[in-house]
Amino acid sequence: MSITPTKADRFSFGLWTVGYNGTDPFGGPTRPALDVVHVVEKLAELGAYGLTFHDDDLFAFGSTDAERQTQIDRLKQAMADTGIVVPMVTTNLFSAPVFKDGGFTSNDRQVRRFALRKVLRNIDLAAELGAKTFVMWGGREGAEYDSAKDIQAALARYKEAVDLLGQYVVDKGYDLRFAIEPKPNEPRGDILLPTLGHAIAFINSLERPEMVGLNPEVGHEQMAGLNFAAGIAQALYHGKLFHIDLNGQRGIKYDQDLVFGHGDLHNAFALVDRLEHGAPGGGPAYDGPRHFDYKPSRTEDEQGIWDSVSANMRTYLLLKERADAFRADPEVQEALRAAKVDELRTPTLNEGESYDDLLADRSAFEDFDAAAYLGGHGFGFVRLQQLATEHLLGAR
Amino acid sequence: MSITPTKADRFSFGLWTVGYNGTDPFGGPTRPALDVVHVVEKLAELGAYGLTFHDDDLFAFGSTDAERQTQIDRLKQAMADTGIVVPMVTTNLFSAPVFKDGGFTSNDRQVRRFALRKVLRNIDLAAELGAKTFVMWGGREGAEYDSAKDIQAALARYKEAVDLLGQYVVDKGYDLRFAIEPKPNEPRGDILLPTLGHAIAFINSLERPEMVGLNPEVGHEQMAGLNFAAGIAQALYHGKLFHIDLNGQRGIKYDQDLVFGHGDLHNAFALVDRLEHGAPGGGPAYDGPRHFDYKPSRTEDEQGIWDSVSANMRTYLLLKERADAFRADPEVQEALRAAKVDELRTPTLNEGESYDDLLADRSAFEDFDAAAYLGGHGFGFVRLQQLATEHLLGAR
Amino acid sequence: MSITPTKADRFSFGLWTVGYNGTDPFGGPTRPALDVVHVVEKLAELGAYGLTFHDDDLFAFGSTDAERQTQIDRLKQAMADTGIVVPMVTTNLFSAPVFKDGGFTSNDRQVRRFALRKVLRNIDLAAELGAKTFVMWGGREGAEYDSAKDIQAALARYKEAVDLLGQYVVDKGYDLRFAIEPKPNEPRGDILLPTLGHAIAFINSLERPEMVGLNPEVGHEQMAGLNFAAGIAQALYHGKLFHIDLNGQRGIKYDQDLVFGHGDLHNAFALVDRLEHGAPGGGPAYDGPRHFDYKPSRTEDEQGIWDSVSANMRTYLLLKERADAFRADPEVQEALRAAKVDELRTPTLNEGESYDDLLADRSAFEDFDAAAYLGGHGFGFVRLQQLATEHLLGAR
Amino acid sequence: MSITPTKADRFSFGLWTVGYNGTDPFGGPTRPALDVVHVVEKLAELGAYGLTFHDDDLFAFGSTDAERQTQIDRLKQAMADTGIVVPMVTTNLFSAPVFKDGGFTSNDRQVRRFALRKVLRNIDLAAELGAKTFVMWGGREGAEYDSAKDIQAALARYKEAVDLLGQYVVDKGYDLRFAIEPKPNEPRGDILLPTLGHAIAFINSLERPEMVGLNPEVGHEQMAGLNFAAGIAQALYHGKLFHIDLNGQRGIKYDQDLVFGHGDLHNAFALVDRLEHGAPGGGPAYDGPRHFDYKPSRTEDEQGIWDSVSANMRTYLLLKERADAFRADPEVQEALRAAKVDELRTPTLNEGESYDDLLADRSAFEDFDAAAYLGGHGFGFVRLQQLATEHLLGAR
Repeated sequence: MSITPTKADRFSFGLWTVGYNGTDPFGGPTRPALDVVHVVEKLAELGAYGLTFHDDDLFAFGSTDAERQTQIDRLKQAMADTGIVVPMVTTNLFSAPVFKDGGFTSNDRQVRRFALRKVLRNIDLAAELGAKTFVMWGGREGAEYDSAKDIQAALARYKEAVDLLGQYVVDKGYDLRFAIEPKPNEPRGDILLPTLGHAIAFINSLERPEMVGLNPEVGHEQMAGLNFAAGIAQALYHGKLFHIDLNGQRGIKYDQDLVFGHGDLHNAFALVDRLEHGAPGGGPAYDGPRHFDYKPSRTEDEQGIWDSVSANMRTYLLLKERADAFRADPEVQEALRAAKVDELRTPTLNEGESYDDLLADRSAFEDFDAAAYLGGHGFGFVRLQQLATEHLLGAR
Repeated sequence: MSITPTKADRFSFGLWTVGYNGTDPFGGPTRPALDVVHVVEKLAELGAYGLTFHDDDLFAFGSTDAERQTQIDRLKQAMADTGIVVPMVTTNLFSAPVFKDGGFTSNDRQVRRFALRKVLRNIDLAAELGAKTFVMWGGREGAEYDSAKDIQAALARYKEAVDLLGQYVVDKGYDLRFAIEPKPNEPRGDILLPTLGHAIAFINSLERPEMVGLNPEVGHEQMAGLNFAAGIAQALYHGKLFHIDLNGQRGIKYDQDLVFGHGDLHNAFALVDRLEHGAPGGGPAYDGPRHFDYKPSRTEDEQGIWDSVSANMRTYLLLKERADAFRADPEVQEALRAAKVDELRTPTLNEGESYDDLLADRSAFEDFDAAAYLGGHGFGFVRLQQLATEHLLGAR
Repeated sequence: MSITPTKADRFSFGLWTVGYNGTDPFGGPTRPALDVVHVVEKLAELGAYGLTFHDDDLFAFGSTDAERQTQIDRLKQAMADTGIVVPMVTTNLFSAPVFKDGGFTSNDRQVRRFALRKVLRNIDLAAELGAKTFVMWGGREGAEYDSAKDIQAALARYKEAVDLLGQYVVDKGYDLRFAIEPKPNEPRGDILLPTLGHAIAFINSLERPEMVGLNPEVGHEQMAGLNFAAGIAQALYHGKLFHIDLNGQRGIKYDQDLVFGHGDLHNAFALVDRLEHGAPGGGPAYDGPRHFDYKPSRTEDEQGIWDSVSANMRTYLLLKERADAFRADPEVQEALRAAKVDELRTPTLNEGESYDDLLADRSAFEDFDAAAYLGGHGFGFVRLQQLATEHLLGAR
Repeated sequence: MSITPTKADRFSFGLWTVGYNGTDPFGGPTRPALDVVHVVEKLAELGAYGLTFHDDDLFAFGSTDAERQTQIDRLKQAMADTGIVVPMVTTNLFSAPVFKDGGFTSNDRQVRRFALRKVLRNIDLAAELGAKTFVMWGGREGAEYDSAKDIQAALARYKEAVDLLGQYVVDKGYDLRFAIEPKPNEPRGDILLPTLGHAIAFINSLERPEMVGLNPEVGHEQMAGLNFAAGIAQALYHGKLFHIDLNGQRGIKYDQDLVFGHGDLHNAFALVDRLEHGAPGGGPAYDGPRHFDYKPSRTEDEQGIWDSVSANMRTYLLLKERADAFRADPEVQEALRAAKVDELRTPTLNEGESYDDLLADRSAFEDFDAAAYLGGHGFGFVRLQQLATEHLLGAR
């Protein structure tokens, strides 16, 4: 297998990622702006297949219609010239002062109406560019103070917004699904729908839950100390993994947006294994874009941007190579069986067994030797983890 | 208002809480066992109304039927003598060696069958004692290592178990609902259904979602850095707050199980305000038991246990008093209006307004003065938080 | 006691705090710039006594000498007009692109030399304005990647810088001490001297440790999950509390810079108690400025800035009132004695006792009844914490 | 290079690590006790060179002198039979009820005296067995509540204890140094000397600082979100790395004590690189035992214990192999130079340069082109991290 990326690998990058100018809470830009055409050309050259963007990434907030159209036309031409596609589009409801208390759930109703208009317009653009996924990251939907936000009302307004957008997409006949991106905090003290669990729960309260899924981001779940690969497995269980944001995070702290694999490497390995091969026993895996949502470190100049683009893709492909070898290793297969990992796929009840049957089965309780588990029936999980570690290290 | 608790306040305590003997990962017991009858008498004396327990709290794992019945009879007599009720019962699927990889989702199918039997038996006891809620904390359902657990299969087995238990309760005609208690980690590296969001999402995949809700615990959500009061609001939004575990936690670390209010005091205030008064604009509030799931510190002797019982209830009542005054304060009401907290309850669309109407409303977009939010339209959230702080401090 | 602040309370504010324009990683300014003269006038009006600043707060990075002097003169005039003093000055080595890898410890030697020059110049200004403390926050001194920084060399360069600055101050005869401000991360992935412990350790390696102390910030220690009041006690133990940054933080996450008391209220209470009254048994307390280093929330307009200024001071004074009452309460005194809090001040050895004496004391070991601590000798810490809680709530 | 461990690798294990019986806060033992002789034999067979222990690991708290001696003799015989040495010994001041508020800093003076006696006795044993390091982990020295502990007095008592022990060791002529092991929390809410920084600071306040260093543990620093490899570098800067505890931790949560390398793999790689090769430019590296302080997962039986012993050593050796290749790679060397990593070793001042010389150097300030760092002078840190990642993955 090659670790040189090609379009077949379906790697995509946000325009805001490579375009990040280095601004952070304690400093201004360290790099000048990049032009979108240049970005598209470089991504194509380096092996990516897709570009994604927020409206404000392509044309500044408050652009005239003419400015907006110029930038759209330039992007389209670059796409035609390079074969780069736009699989996903999203709308910025968090940067401008008007969104300081959020967009869909701002306490200020005028802001909520403005937000809806901004998104509706951008959905048209997404459809025009052929995007199949419309991501909604509600980074400003939240609060710093418990009394400042009626959370139940906020969820009701969120639902009102997403229901309306869903109706619009259906009526227009767009081939577009929505993907909610959860995050626990930053830039708000606490953000609405802080984890992928909360987001799936919310989606079930919508009018068209089937149109709405998730765009989970590695670092966002890890900022809550949660296991990303486990979360992705639950998202797959619910059929809600519509899109994914790959990056790196080193524990519970500010949102680092490092290169994929430059954070928790064990979990990145488990993630790639899951995305590429499904559950240990096989099962629904992900076939959407491998989308990188990261920031080239502020210490870098433009060369560092392109180095980081390549680093994301190379690490993914290396982990895929490791995962392939892990799955194919007979010793791993044996260890998985010894750890009864596949026995978990067998239903607990026999086919057709009722609770009465179970209650009548003395081997399940009265005659079951629970004491034998003291000192016995070890699961061998450490051995399994060591096999995974050695595969990850390229040592087997 | 009095801060002397009475049965009308509906305070309940787990038998394992006051019965905690001080064992922790680095030390053995510092206190001898407490007898259940003594516990019931003391709780009644101190103003509680309810006792809750796991099967293993009342009779040791592996007890004979006779030993089990003796303990049940002793509890019943104490209940009769004191008026203490048992509003909730739960089953221990985490302490015995047999559950070292979990109960409902152990990789070992024999263990899963045994777990179901143990729970079915305890559901009968719960119904017999008049409990209305059956809590399920799956503390051992999880893994330390990503390859050790097929999460999708684990969720399928969890669903299989809960569906069977639901069928059993329906068929038996028990007046009992289930409440899942989420936790992110400890004792497993990562626990299945790590937050209340994940649990609600899971519940929606069950056969009888209406029978299953949540038992969120203050410290468990805070161990993931999540805002507990905000989480409770989302649980209320989904109609899933069936029961609650009150305690204290000081940030992201091991599960501390401190006295309620001895952790994050701001959030405890917001929580009591929400439970007692509903959303800022009114709305569904919680009317179940105020259940304390905490541990009297290991440094304490028996007197410290009873001091901590009183401390939980007193703090709750003091916070209730503060919340009442906060709600009644005209300056707070005015600040809430200025911060447009209630404007969030007004739907974003006018009655009957379609997206076409919204698109035609120039005031919503073309004529909307977004720039006025730079330097203007401040929300006054800091002022509101200061008012809350001063009420919390009893200074207004 | 009044909760109206006066100059006697010695409250000071950073120019960058009230001047924060709302920029964060996901959005630009929501407020226009404030003029320093206006800030000084408002702070005086609201009861503060001091203003602090970085060079770049007062005059933009790269200002001409004339622009710089104009701003200095305007500040001096405002100080004369209002009686506001400048007790502390600091230098910005983190915002400009040149400092993208740090100042004193940038891998780039030219940058390190430039940083020294910038600080030397600002030390002259600090002395000219009568500041007694020169704070050094090395927010960019750090790394995202382990191989990118030779930490031992970085510490050696840090020492080289501070030793040179110390020599300069001594030679110039300035009445100025240095205070290092630790922070674990943000804006760098890991910052050098991440906690106050690391900083004290480092200070002991300097040529003039007596000239260098700490400027600990509430939120910075709490971002590492550490107990701020306990850290301050250790700083006092080492005689290193030269200055302090008061603010609020809600757990381990991005640097929130909330109003003091809008974060962990229990710990804020313990802190004020310690600062105002010293250790439980009396002891060295802090007599420097009560300096607020916080950010008015981005949702606020200018009124919100001034509301937040007042909120900081009012909360401090309210907590001081609570601490006074706590100390004066006879029940608290009795509970402290019961918990043997003051017994810890008694040396473990008798006066003049050698280890041989101790080894010969059978009551200390052979005849000591260690078993009596099982079920006995409870410390009553929960009762004590409940008394603190009730004082904090203004309920006693 | 071989990844089969030998005595020359100096791997040591705590008796309490392989002897861990599975007890945790939510469950009892899952494994029977292991006999020390069996442990010594197995460790020798698997390639370890050393065993370490607390007194209570070898003979239960409260053993008679005869029971104690029997166990000591059995250990000595096993050592003689296998060549296993005891490089480090430590004393348990945390498990027995008598230590519920700590040992050296318990509020109860009688307990403090008892603790000193227990440690003095164990120091004699350490010396008798040839240990060179005496570790002190003060896991119970701390508090849950701010008013329960006078931290300054606690530090004074800690100092009193360590000073006395130092005097004793000197007087006895033992070849023994002390190593303090920091931890932020668990089992106490906040532990004294929470990080290695705090511990070094404290050591500097002792009578014999040269006799006292650190025993940092990977997971303990990571429980505070701190970078362990960076902390080790600071410990080396101060000459305080006397011993080390290797294990794995997955972020900020309860103390996991996983196998080394089963936690943060990037940081484990950086650590091994630092221990084996010193600072990037060479420098003092560590030559003590590679000591594993971990727990075989509770899910395992005895086979899992020995698998986990091997896993620790194999991962260390694999990381050493990766670090060797990383250092030897010419592309890495070139990237380190490009990132100016070694330029940080060059003093900022020229030899003999005074601050006056620096002030006179116009190239350092007046003529320095700070603006060129916007878009220029990129550091190439991402490229370096990707090289490290690919070496770690065994892909170069």
